[in-house]
Amino acid sequence: MNIVLASNSPRRREILSQLNISFEVVPSDFEETLINMEPIALVEHFAYMKALDVFVRLKNNLAEDTYVIGSDTIVYCGEIMGKPKSDEDAFKMLKALSNKEHQVISGLSVIQGSTGKVITMHESTKVWIRELGDREIMNYISSGEPCDKAGAYAIQGIGSLFVEKIQGCYFNVVGLPVNKLFRIMKQFDINLI
Amino acid sequence: MNIVLASNSPRRREILSQLNISFEVVPSDFEETLINMEPIALVEHFAYMKALDVFVRLKNNLAEDTYVIGSDTIVYCGEIMGKPKSDEDAFKMLKALSNKEHQVISGLSVIQGSTGKVITMHESTKVWIRELGDREIMNYISSGEPCDKAGAYAIQGIGSLFVEKIQGCYFNVVGLPVNKLFRIMKQFDINLI
Repeated sequence: MNIVLASNSPRRREILSQLNISFEVVPSDFEETLINMEPIALVEHFAYMKALDVFVRLKNNLAEDTYVIGSDTIVYCGEIMGKPKSDEDAFKMLKALSNKEHQVISGLSVIQGSTGKVITMHESTKVWIRELGDREIMNYISSGEPCDKAGAYAIQGIGSLFVEKIQGCYFNVVGLPVNKLFRIMKQFDINLI
Repeated sequence: MNIVLASNSPRRREILSQLNISFEVVPSDFEETLINMEPIALVEHFAYMKALDVFVRLKNNLAEDTYVIGSDTIVYCGEIMGKPKSDEDAFKMLKALSNKEHQVISGLSVIQGSTGKVITMHESTKVWIRELGDREIMNYISSGEPCDKAGAYAIQGIGSLFVEKIQGCYFNVVGLPVNKLFRIMKQFDINLI
């Protein structure tokens, strides 16, 4: 079995590596543009489009038993939060998440290379953020960590100091819902362990 | 502020590093022997004894503003599970955790170097493990991952394929409850961010 990860995210690469699965990275060129969709429909759409882009590009060079994985993650707190566009944007997002519960939703789409068969799922995890002071938000922003993260925080980094607790799949919050990947591959008759 | 981590666990080191906190590692020589205590009392006791061992050894060489951190983690599922003693032991533990909910409990103890003042807390996280087949348990054991892990699995590794969901602090399951560390340091008037 060959896995192609249609994402350049170092977090997703790290999660796959921890599973002891060998894989290849082929970043997708798909450009995410927020469209008028419900959060779950949106992340499933983005995940599929990412996998599809790589599948189409590699189609003639795909080894037998290849599976292309696409994934997309958003933060949802009444509104959809992607990556912040500026420090001010990051500040606004973190203020909006302070002292509240929100959802992190990922779409995961896997395309079987030999048949083009697609299985897409999503996963949602609740995250509780404690009350954040303006000063600590500013300190956090100056660490540089928020700039490329959906919702302007990284649960696997300094941002863990903001998280009170979670309910659901942790790896979904980082960017790749491992339990859903296991289930999708099982539906393709592949046992990851 | 200087942090001394009284643990040789690579997982705990990694979590502290992710917080962007500089620290020194001085492994404790304290030997854990299961004694007749409730799970919470036990992990708090072990965490304190680990921190104390290092505090006493370093006492005369402690820089001002030094804090010694001790931590201990167990898996609790009706009985206390530490690290497996053999592959058979690991198999028994994983069978016992299969298709069930259990608790991961960590004790965290911090000693202020200049005063000897101690603050100890614990954190408990619920973890749901899906139904595990004998074959996948054996495959997992032959990966070598379970051998030095409480409860015979690592949520941050291949073991993530077994975890359905969690409720509470993820880092507590890995071995260091970050939110409790934040609270303890706050009580020492130190803001980690």
